[in-house]
Amino acid sequence: MAISLSKTFLSIAHQVFPSEKCRPVSFSGREPQLQRTTSMGFATRSLRMPRVSSKTSGSLFSSIDELDKETREERRVADVWREIHGVDDWVGMLDPMDPLLRSELIRYGEMAQACYDAFDFDPFSKYCGSCRFTPRQFFDSLAMADHGYVVSRYIFATSNINLPNFFKKSRWPKVWSKSANWIGYVAVSNDEISKRLGRRDIVVAWRGTVTRLEWIADLMDFLKPISSNKIPCPDSTVKVESGFLDLYIDKDVNCRFCKFSAREQILTEVKRLLEIYQLEELSLTITGHSLGSALAILSAYDIVETGLNVLQDSRAVPVSVFSFSGPRVGNVRFKERMEVLGVKVLRVVNVHDIVPKSPGLFFNENVPLLLMKMAERLPWSYSHVGVELSLDHKNSPFLKETGDLSCAHNLEALLHLLDGYHGKGHRFVLASGRDPALVNKATDFLKDHYLVPPYWRQYENKGMVRNEDGRWMQPERPKLDDHPEHTHRYLKQLGLASHH
Amino acid sequence: MAISLSKTFLSIAHQVFPSEKCRPVSFSGREPQLQRTTSMGFATRSLRMPRVSSKTSGSLFSSIDELDKETREERRVADVWREIHGVDDWVGMLDPMDPLLRSELIRYGEMAQACYDAFDFDPFSKYCGSCRFTPRQFFDSLAMADHGYVVSRYIFATSNINLPNFFKKSRWPKVWSKSANWIGYVAVSNDEISKRLGRRDIVVAWRGTVTRLEWIADLMDFLKPISSNKIPCPDSTVKVESGFLDLYIDKDVNCRFCKFSAREQILTEVKRLLEIYQLEELSLTITGHSLGSALAILSAYDIVETGLNVLQDSRAVPVSVFSFSGPRVGNVRFKERMEVLGVKVLRVVNVHDIVPKSPGLFFNENVPLLLMKMAERLPWSYSHVGVELSLDHKNSPFLKETGDLSCAHNLEALLHLLDGYHGKGHRFVLASGRDPALVNKATDFLKDHYLVPPYWRQYENKGMVRNEDGRWMQPERPKLDDHPEHTHRYLKQLGLASHH
Repeated sequence: MAISLSKTFLSIAHQVFPSEKCRPVSFSGREPQLQRTTSMGFATRSLRMPRVSSKTSGSLFSSIDELDKETREERRVADVWREIHGVDDWVGMLDPMDPLLRSELIRYGEMAQACYDAFDFDPFSKYCGSCRFTPRQFFDSLAMADHGYVVSRYIFATSNINLPNFFKKSRWPKVWSKSANWIGYVAVSNDEISKRLGRRDIVVAWRGTVTRLEWIADLMDFLKPISSNKIPCPDSTVKVESGFLDLYIDKDVNCRFCKFSAREQILTEVKRLLEIYQLEELSLTITGHSLGSALAILSAYDIVETGLNVLQDSRAVPVSVFSFSGPRVGNVRFKERMEVLGVKVLRVVNVHDIVPKSPGLFFNENVPLLLMKMAERLPWSYSHVGVELSLDHKNSPFLKETGDLSCAHNLEALLHLLDGYHGKGHRFVLASGRDPALVNKATDFLKDHYLVPPYWRQYENKGMVRNEDGRWMQPERPKLDDHPEHTHRYLKQLGLASHH
Repeated sequence: MAISLSKTFLSIAHQVFPSEKCRPVSFSGREPQLQRTTSMGFATRSLRMPRVSSKTSGSLFSSIDELDKETREERRVADVWREIHGVDDWVGMLDPMDPLLRSELIRYGEMAQACYDAFDFDPFSKYCGSCRFTPRQFFDSLAMADHGYVVSRYIFATSNINLPNFFKKSRWPKVWSKSANWIGYVAVSNDEISKRLGRRDIVVAWRGTVTRLEWIADLMDFLKPISSNKIPCPDSTVKVESGFLDLYIDKDVNCRFCKFSAREQILTEVKRLLEIYQLEELSLTITGHSLGSALAILSAYDIVETGLNVLQDSRAVPVSVFSFSGPRVGNVRFKERMEVLGVKVLRVVNVHDIVPKSPGLFFNENVPLLLMKMAERLPWSYSHVGVELSLDHKNSPFLKETGDLSCAHNLEALLHLLDGYHGKGHRFVLASGRDPALVNKATDFLKDHYLVPPYWRQYENKGMVRNEDGRWMQPERPKLDDHPEHTHRYLKQLGLASHH
């Protein structure tokens, strides 16, 4: 995805370089020179053209140079997608930050973010716990049509497992499902974007938790041999956190949405898609934020361990995980097994986020009570997998100082940090001009003087509409599809059909 | 406004009669008989047709009888509007509750509620403190076109007076006005509705406070002779709360929105409209909730004291106030002067609301600290004016027990109580089937099993929209009008022009 020159200049035009010393928005009306340069930034139209004061012009132009260089290289994703996908374990691509890798990471991060934006988490909604949109209209509804993917299947998980702070339940007595929660989707790149990407890309995106972090305390019970749950693994010392495994494996035969486990849904759908596109160049990219990252890693492992990614002509489709703000998933043996299998994992984290430090966090008096509680019952043998790309929200001049843990864990904030990251010690400069206003979708993290409302992502009247009688009510939605007929066929092919 | 028979039946069809004993929505799925009768109530379409269980049919039919009787009388507002307007001080109309008075009170209450629904109170909005809509589109934007009124002028007040918890200020450095807040409107009934009402009705509606009650503590400073502020009054012992008077009188010559005081804006507009319609039958109806009620009473007094309502042919246009949840405004002498002048005031209150008890509240250990603070500096000579219609939210089976003071003070809740009120000791039965879901617009007051989201009135993405570049921003609004040219002319006619 080459950045055109005109687009580069437009991004620069949008940029502002706030700092505590030269506060962009002067409420007093003094400092007109500074104010003209930096006022409002992204939140108004006035910054469409670059306005440079003598004080900041140096840095502005150096940043244009910087981006120019990136543009001049004219590398195309189609040519380097295997490197971006981690074939060389991202060696030399993270510092300085490879611009194509950065924009691809943001692209996949947005596909993980889509799981939040589409999720109905209002307990007063009849459809709480479901996806607000039909699979066909998924990306259109989120104004993400230009991502060029088509959702081929939704994934559901059962809330019957012990994760009270993860699952969302409607207060309505008659709901779309008593035990299911929508937990992600499988999507395929369309012809146009596949050409640009150099391959047909199958994406699995797993939803994480909405905002609250209490789910960590629920989860961290104990490590369980992965083979104990009928996931094939030659080594019984390979263990993963049992909560993640349960979420991935459990099903409820009485519910039409989770009569298949998330695992079964994923495996059958990936098998089906690989069959359809087996004559093309292919990639499998699995992404997720927070708990979704754990499921991404687990499902990537599963797909490769079961050999699902090996086509009939013996080609192995590369499987990579782009993980955002993810916790540790398993023990060191799990990490080693992932390496043997060649599952590539790039984990993007904010150093101030506690979730990637869990389990195995260094506990001290600053740690909230719920984490202390968690620590008491933990073995200390968890290990991260893959390669870490560690960012620091204190480097972004757009963000305010806050002790709010959910800010440091927020995915939109992390994508903002990615956009400004050029390598260790490099100045924070937004590369794509990605809208910093997105940070405040579900946080109060942007500095107040940008005047972006905190927690601004909300639905008109909480989804209530007036009917023809003038009464306010929740509109009915189209009947939700559960699972395609062909699931059984693919389960048989996978040797999993005996469970039904 | 005659209630047609079909409409009556429709209302009944919508009704539900919840009580703790027969809980309408059964989460367990048991009690199917009851559930069918009452499940969901107003929030679903399933209640469009009456469904009567043996257990509740008695009360259902008795209430149909009750409403039938009202309908059979076939009284028309056009015939009895003077009584509804208080010519006989509403004697005999409140217990049992006169059905036409009730529906008219709700209609005016909705016009007061419109001030809240249209007010922009988000400090992150550039237009915070203004009305979201243009005067021309005011009622259409609120889906109130069928009220049949046209806004002729907006009223602004200056926030320079000491009411920090009343005025709303934007965080933006460049705003529509530094010191003005939109505080109400003047509207006139159109030809069609005037025919139904039996006269051309001029309405002044004053905005109150949004939800927080702290403004009471700010306000209650001391009583001030009304004549001290150039409002003509023959008796210097007639006093009103100085905070209300300041709000009504103050202006800011440097602000184009409040270069005229609220008083000047009202008086000139009322004079202009009375001139235009002087050959017709006319009424002046002033309404407001909370602090808006105080301004309604003050402005009604002013209009009559100055003789503004007397037409050239010496006819006096009747002036009435429909007050909702209003505090005391002045001393006993003020009350007596109102009576001498013939200004009719009907005050609708919820007995559990503390605002109508202020100033002069009976203080005890249950009273919040801020009210205690207030009490310390108060003289005890405040007096209510007019006639009180006292309702009790504990009579509504729709509402939950709550200690939240803002629930008891909420206007939508009060209109709901009005709709169910038939007189002291009468059973609570919704007369118009007015949607109880409205109660939760800005409260968490409806019982949870109705499944109406609390605080559901909100704007999509807090008013942010994506521009053509994909960036999220607040859209610009049409330039706000301040005051018409003819204001000066009418000020002169009123003998008030010297101040400019």
